[in-house]
Amino acid sequence: MSIRNTFWVKYQIEAKGEKGAASKARQISIEQSVEMPPEVVPDSSVNNIAQVQSLNMIDSRTWEASILFDTNLVDVDPTQFLNVLFGNISLQPWCRIMDADPSYLSQLLDGPSFGINGIRNLLEIENRSLSCAVIKPIGSSPDELANMAFEFAKGGIDIIKDDHGLTNQKSAPFDSRVKKCVQAIRKGEQLSGKKTLYFPNITTSAIRIIERYQKASEFGADGVLVAPQLVGFETMHELAKLGELPVMAHPTFSGSYVINQSGIDPAFYFGRLTRSFGADAIIYPNAQGRFSFSTSTCKSINQSCQEDLSTIQPSFPAPGGGVKLDTIPDLAEQYGQDIIFLIGGSLYKHPNGLQFAAHQFQKSIDQSA
Amino acid sequence: MSIRNTFWVKYQIEAKGEKGAASKARQISIEQSVEMPPEVVPDSSVNNIAQVQSLNMIDSRTWEASILFDTNLVDVDPTQFLNVLFGNISLQPWCRIMDADPSYLSQLLDGPSFGINGIRNLLEIENRSLSCAVIKPIGSSPDELANMAFEFAKGGIDIIKDDHGLTNQKSAPFDSRVKKCVQAIRKGEQLSGKKTLYFPNITTSAIRIIERYQKASEFGADGVLVAPQLVGFETMHELAKLGELPVMAHPTFSGSYVINQSGIDPAFYFGRLTRSFGADAIIYPNAQGRFSFSTSTCKSINQSCQEDLSTIQPSFPAPGGGVKLDTIPDLAEQYGQDIIFLIGGSLYKHPNGLQFAAHQFQKSIDQSA
Repeated sequence: MSIRNTFWVKYQIEAKGEKGAASKARQISIEQSVEMPPEVVPDSSVNNIAQVQSLNMIDSRTWEASILFDTNLVDVDPTQFLNVLFGNISLQPWCRIMDADPSYLSQLLDGPSFGINGIRNLLEIENRSLSCAVIKPIGSSPDELANMAFEFAKGGIDIIKDDHGLTNQKSAPFDSRVKKCVQAIRKGEQLSGKKTLYFPNITTSAIRIIERYQKASEFGADGVLVAPQLVGFETMHELAKLGELPVMAHPTFSGSYVINQSGIDPAFYFGRLTRSFGADAIIYPNAQGRFSFSTSTCKSINQSCQEDLSTIQPSFPAPGGGVKLDTIPDLAEQYGQDIIFLIGGSLYKHPNGLQFAAHQFQKSIDQSA
Repeated sequence: MSIRNTFWVKYQIEAKGEKGAASKARQISIEQSVEMPPEVVPDSSVNNIAQVQSLNMIDSRTWEASILFDTNLVDVDPTQFLNVLFGNISLQPWCRIMDADPSYLSQLLDGPSFGINGIRNLLEIENRSLSCAVIKPIGSSPDELANMAFEFAKGGIDIIKDDHGLTNQKSAPFDSRVKKCVQAIRKGEQLSGKKTLYFPNITTSAIRIIERYQKASEFGADGVLVAPQLVGFETMHELAKLGELPVMAHPTFSGSYVINQSGIDPAFYFGRLTRSFGADAIIYPNAQGRFSFSTSTCKSINQSCQEDLSTIQPSFPAPGGGVKLDTIPDLAEQYGQDIIFLIGGSLYKHPNGLQFAAHQFQKSIDQSA
């Protein structure tokens, strides 16, 4: 196999006129590679200066630059790739990352261990979207949380995840919570007659997170929930490589990248990037709810999670927020079947209780298949 | 000692009118605590619903809300604190974190192990600002980098750090680079007659970062450079707790938080927050250079690094970008003496070479004392 020795990154640049845009593109190419005046770069590193490959006008104030980086800048370190992608240039208000070379992503990164097919295999479900419910809030005891999980499992939910705020608080210590929820869900499965997967939240100091992953596996959990922006993207990548449990990525602390004009395009961030770093399922803030993404942005995220990416498997997009029992048919039609629909707090409002709410949720999904 | 059981966070909210602002403040308090409709929060967790403590108008479109959180939401997990601080609410374009309860920060977090005094003790320098030069670029060999370090050390620089892009590339593997640079700097110190500290970059996967910290220590480095936004803030906190080497924090990948209206106030981010999470020195993008902070923002960052924070030691603010030999006297007057002035690429442009440039840099600092 031939080794590629360059990769491209596409940046959107705000500038007045082509000259200004070209100057900013050049600034990115230097800032994100040698980060010193080009005239004093030593001979040994001259080939590392990134090159502006193309510059196209999008509108009178917006340009798209494709910049070509030498792979030697990264070598084999995934964290250093992020540093090259969006290091000091993240501090410039006129710059937004739109995309990065998919061939290179698949060369550097391993992607999900399970992916869409792997999660479908665990559930033995082929041809419909999946449901995901959340046990919450912080402050509930392990018994209370296990009871919610039991109700959801009885109602036939496909995946139950911890609220992303459940860590190891005294009110529900990690070990006790995970053990009890696993037991409750296994019991619920016997009543529902179908599988339900449980993804506890293992987000904590990256230095201790492997221990929680291993415990989750040992206690019988079916996956884990991780916040890559809190623990580091490469931490998630390393967890994914362990390959015992699928990884669901949570968007907490990531908003500043994806809701501002400067930052990272949401489809790239929640799609190719998070997927390449190993997330089997990727939660993102859905349109129509309390967050600000448009339906078109959400569709782009879905596509970026699912489309061909060489050796990197597709990930399940998992829109949350704005998903309600009565919006599922419409969403299912728009988003297709390779989706995990996540319903959080609103299931708890159902007057007939959690099991009934879960059952209705599952019914909406089945009917939309 | 009495245990505090609440802490406040101040959020700036964009809203039209008091009613809209109050509704958004309430939304934050729910989103960042129980994250479910208040009417269905179980009794066991009702006390965990955060409370809007005050709401003050700043101007016709801007409000500041102080929100009171129960410490049980965090318990003792620093990563979970970040999740409560700026979790899903990071996805809202109308919300910005301004500050968090200093008493609580000092209760939850350990801060720097060395701090300003610790770094001064290592250098045996009491009453002036410090100089910091950078060895670069990626692609240079260990011998080339060691030679730059030697020239800087001969010129009397106080601190030499790796470029934040130097990780473990084949062009300059970590072990070889750190060993050679330490040797070169120890040799340079003998010629300059003064101490020079070396901070290699150890940023990598958080799961492997402790190994690099330990190696840096074993090879005789005097500190380490870490990018908290790439490795996770708590990872830096854990490294700081090891206490063998001072930690310098680099701002790569952090821009989206601090340059947008929604996000995190730069003085809080580069000051109290990064400081509480253990950075002994904190690099931030200086005014007057290629970045966009104002001088007033920079002064606020300096103050937030240095001011009293109970048990948490002061950190050295380290402005970089826009620091030049001829701007140091003015900056020194404005910023005071508890500052590390960082000069990157521009030192390499000096026609008389690195040692001379370093010597001039040091002279500017001495004269500004």
